[in-house]
Amino acid sequence: MTKISAPTLEDVARLAGVSTASISRALNDPDKVAKPTRDKIEAAIEALGYTPNFGGRALASNRTNTVGAVVPTMANAMFASGLQAFQEVLSEAGVNLLLATTGYDSEQELRQIKALMAHGADGLMLIGDARPQSTRDFLEKRRIPHVISWCFQPDASPIHVGFDNRAACYAATQHVLELGHRRIAMICGVRQGNDRAADRFDGVSAAIDDFGQGAAMVRAVDAQYRLEFGGDAFEKIMSQSPRPTAIICGNDVLAAGALKRARELGIDVPGDVSLVGFDDIGLASVVTPALATVRVPQIEMGREAARLLLARLSGEEGGGPVELHTEFMPRASLAPPAQAVDQPEP
Amino acid sequence: MTKISAPTLEDVARLAGVSTASISRALNDPDKVAKPTRDKIEAAIEALGYTPNFGGRALASNRTNTVGAVVPTMANAMFASGLQAFQEVLSEAGVNLLLATTGYDSEQELRQIKALMAHGADGLMLIGDARPQSTRDFLEKRRIPHVISWCFQPDASPIHVGFDNRAACYAATQHVLELGHRRIAMICGVRQGNDRAADRFDGVSAAIDDFGQGAAMVRAVDAQYRLEFGGDAFEKIMSQSPRPTAIICGNDVLAAGALKRARELGIDVPGDVSLVGFDDIGLASVVTPALATVRVPQIEMGREAARLLLARLSGEEGGGPVELHTEFMPRASLAPPAQAVDQPEP
Repeated sequence: MTKISAPTLEDVARLAGVSTASISRALNDPDKVAKPTRDKIEAAIEALGYTPNFGGRALASNRTNTVGAVVPTMANAMFASGLQAFQEVLSEAGVNLLLATTGYDSEQELRQIKALMAHGADGLMLIGDARPQSTRDFLEKRRIPHVISWCFQPDASPIHVGFDNRAACYAATQHVLELGHRRIAMICGVRQGNDRAADRFDGVSAAIDDFGQGAAMVRAVDAQYRLEFGGDAFEKIMSQSPRPTAIICGNDVLAAGALKRARELGIDVPGDVSLVGFDDIGLASVVTPALATVRVPQIEMGREAARLLLARLSGEEGGGPVELHTEFMPRASLAPPAQAVDQPEP
Repeated sequence: MTKISAPTLEDVARLAGVSTASISRALNDPDKVAKPTRDKIEAAIEALGYTPNFGGRALASNRTNTVGAVVPTMANAMFASGLQAFQEVLSEAGVNLLLATTGYDSEQELRQIKALMAHGADGLMLIGDARPQSTRDFLEKRRIPHVISWCFQPDASPIHVGFDNRAACYAATQHVLELGHRRIAMICGVRQGNDRAADRFDGVSAAIDDFGQGAAMVRAVDAQYRLEFGGDAFEKIMSQSPRPTAIICGNDVLAAGALKRARELGIDVPGDVSLVGFDDIGLASVVTPALATVRVPQIEMGREAARLLLARLSGEEGGGPVELHTEFMPRASLAPPAQAVDQPEP
């Protein structure tokens, strides 16, 4: 078995009849190399299909013009459209994007951060704030320029770009309560290790507590962000007594899964129970009934995260944090409860 | 403004009080380094948060244990679940995945291939067969181990893992024809530069031609794979005469967009027109009516692509091509036409 190996700098030097140092100069500082020499080098690079190794180039220029993004999953349209916008802004600045996923596993996140840095990323975009101290230490010691997206809190640091998950869910829950709902359940994302999921739960919970008037969270079930798990959680909640009149879901995928299961079980939405999602991905307005949800400024968030990261890579310290705003989208899956409970007399 | 730079091999050497060559040996061939020296080196690496640069390591071992995948978009659940499976198999083998997207642009594909190789990828997974000669030349000259997924043709090369898009659409169209449909339209993906979209159109077209009995493709509209463009294409097709009784869509996203627009226009599916999708992403069975579609073995395809790429990275030439099979999923969005046209007398 012959080992096929990629052409090296030495191969290019041999073919062009120049030193490897000349090639290095031609790549990094072309003005210092005479035109005929550059032409020979370019022809040799082209002929051999040689790619300069950015690992090596980074030693000279300290920049590879590549950034990494580490996201929990690509299977949610939410991250996908934000990343698309993130990539577009980077692209305009001549910066490449490399992606890695964590599957919502914090050890995997640290491995991926290390891998991206080892492969020469100049900086990183990370999602959310929940990560072990060991990961924070690594980012700190390695002095990795990075931004944190998809979350924002009142005490956010200058590297945050996002929205306040707690406040967004607080506001959505107020809409639900004002329609007359008093028994509310929640299908949360898995809160352990996911600050966005935990903040969304806290927002729903606080809104119910603050509202009073007999309103209560009758049940909260954590579920991985997949259609079938949303369905399972819905079935669990609706099989127990008292049934809620409204279920607020940690994202649209869970809500769509709940909606599908409701149909299979002959439970009418919103007649028997109202459903509310989060994110406003395309799916939310395609299903029947359309999902009431919270619109997240996905594209704006991706763009702002890219701008902030590019600024930090240029050594600018300002520009952040950036807070973005969400909007509640009332749609057909949310209606007043069939029998309004504990409504004050008119 | 001070330039903050990452700790280098030299910094580690200084702190550990050893030569850079010892560190290199400790990283690449630890058995050749005495335990006390290794311990000092490891402590220094930990203290500084140093990450070995795989660009440099690659020179020694010729392997970075990282592969790249270049996909058109992450905004389609189709690629996302295939990639998830691809990553899982790589992970079991201790191999990292870096991702890049092309936005269905072939120049962007070549840039991303070059970027991934420059950042030390050992090999690549690419999607589909349509790419310019310049990209093929680059892969060839640079001798890049790679596999091509999401497509398979009878003359497939050993690096292909996928299914026959043309045959899958041919079979789906036969189902539609057998229900009595004779006026069929198609909402295709953009066929230019996308062999999967072109093959799907060819399959539908050939099935209609072969069936005869007055069956005809009354219209075919190319549309980018997004909900709203599926809706626009649907509206265009349904505003012209003669209207089709069935529309076959290049993927589920287009079909869901068509379904949404049908609802807005007061056109009943399947009463006025039947709809068929492609991929069987989660969305297909969540919408009402559920979408008839072609189930693609996404997870199996991702796994097989990873296995084939790992084999090629080990220098094995066999193992491919791998053909996977699709399955037609009849669902409520497909029914016989209201007035069966040109049906033979019973």
